Amino acid sequence: VRVLGIDPGYHRCGYGVLEQHGQQWRLLASGAVITDRAQSMALRLHALSRELDLLCRLHQPDALAIEELYFAKNAKTAMGVAQARGVILAQAAGLGLTIAEYAPSTVKSQLTGNGAADKQQVAFMVRRLVGGGLSPAADALDDELDAIAVALCHSLRGATPAANALLAASVGRRR
Amino acid sequence: VRVLGIDPGYHRCGYGVLEQHGQQWRLLASGAVITDRAQSMALRLHALSRELDLLCRLHQPDALAIEELYFAKNAKTAMGVAQARGVILAQAAGLGLTIAEYAPSTVKSQLTGNGAADKQQVAFMVRRLVGGGLSPAADALDDELDAIAVALCHSLRGATPAANALLAASVGRRR
Repeated sequence: VRVLGIDPGYHRCGYGVLEQHGQQWRLLASGAVITDRAQSMALRLHALSRELDLLCRLHQPDALAIEELYFAKNAKTAMGVAQARGVILAQAAGLGLTIAEYAPSTVKSQLTGNGAADKQQVAFMVRRLVGGGLSPAADALDDELDAIAVALCHSLRGATPAANALLAASVGRRR
Repeated sequence: VRVLGIDPGYHRCGYGVLEQHGQQWRLLASGAVITDRAQSMALRLHALSRELDLLCRLHQPDALAIEELYFAKNAKTAMGVAQARGVILAQAAGLGLTIAEYAPSTVKSQLTGNGAADKQQVAFMVRRLVGGGLSPAADALDDELDAIAVALCHSLRGATPAANALLAASVGRRR
């Protein structure tokens, strides 16, 4: 099963495409779609939509994993992000992807065992699970890591309890 | 020039397609796209996107007129509406439409001369200007009227001062 994880945004939209092989996860692609600040919101959203379409054509994911809509203190930014999120959901549905939404605490809990884990803990586990495919620390930014994290969350939840136990063991071994 | 006015929403999305002929406005289509509450948000947004695409293919508008993003007290509803709005903006940009965003006060001011006009005043002017094409009072709902209002706003702003004066006179005459 291939999972496209997305951290939605209209300026930077993080993405990660993950494939599960037994207890191994392979990162097929990750990065961020960056839109041009000089363009109108409509053109930026359209550019995002075009890039997502290309990503999906290229990597043929079966599912989209995305965090649930959140209600931030900064309403203006949150509403902008919601617009980008709408574009992503509509497009994924149009392409027939399964759509899985997770609360941020579920993502944290699934990856680290702690629903209140901080960004560093989550990043640590993302690097541990898919480290090989990831850009060097300096280049992999928050949105890219967050996108991979939600994809991993979906993938881990789909795994059998046995696989998850094996995973926990293998993560332990590598420590 | 044909203008597609939209009052964005994920449950009901009001629309109106308007064509200007001198000082007359002809309503080519209006109504609301209604999505199925039983479906997921992603499928509803995709259905909205498909309906908009059909509307645009059928009526070939040159411009999209839409109200600016607003920050409502009900954050959850507002974020849902923002997701629908993102779908609409991206799609209109993809179809090459000119995109015009107006503050609610601008729409009210352009139609009634009063930026703080109430819904009844705006509805009165919408009916006066495009009354012939509109469904009977009982059937034309808020979102449909709001969509036509923002389309009229765009159309009126594009008109020359002379045309606007003629319009004012003709509206006066019909009173």
